[in-house]
Amino acid sequence: MESDFRKQVGERLMNLRSNNNLSQEMLANQADLDRSYISRIERGIISPSVENLSKICNVLNTSLSKFFHDF
Amino acid sequence: MESDFRKQVGERLMNLRSNNNLSQEMLANQADLDRSYISRIERGIISPSVENLSKICNVLNTSLSKFFHDF
Repeated sequence: MESDFRKQVGERLMNLRSNNNLSQEMLANQADLDRSYISRIERGIISPSVENLSKICNVLNTSLSKFFHDF
Repeated sequence: MESDFRKQVGERLMNLRSNNNLSQEMLANQADLDRSYISRIERGIISPSVENLSKICNVLNTSLSKFFHDF
């Protein structure tokens, strides 16, 4: 259940990043985060802080409310 | 800026918790988290993981999309 939640968040992030034609490294640099951190979120290994996910959403031209629209 | 973000999240949590007539301890117990963790979120000291905020939203009868409706 909790792992499913992390996987859902990770898949959504990966899809949004791909739609923006950004590599994990490009996204990480623009959001001032580590590439390995992005990778671990996308694989559902960790759950990002809302603050870091907000930074990520800014780079991906979206908002937390849009990211979680069906959560 | 980043600290403002944490404060906004903290204030929203505190308001929602009060509206649900729950103490920090009651919320923490129901969400399976520590009371001090809830306290640090509400004071804007830390940013919760999206997974833990999701647990908190469940207890408060809301969703992540509603929590972040204007973020």
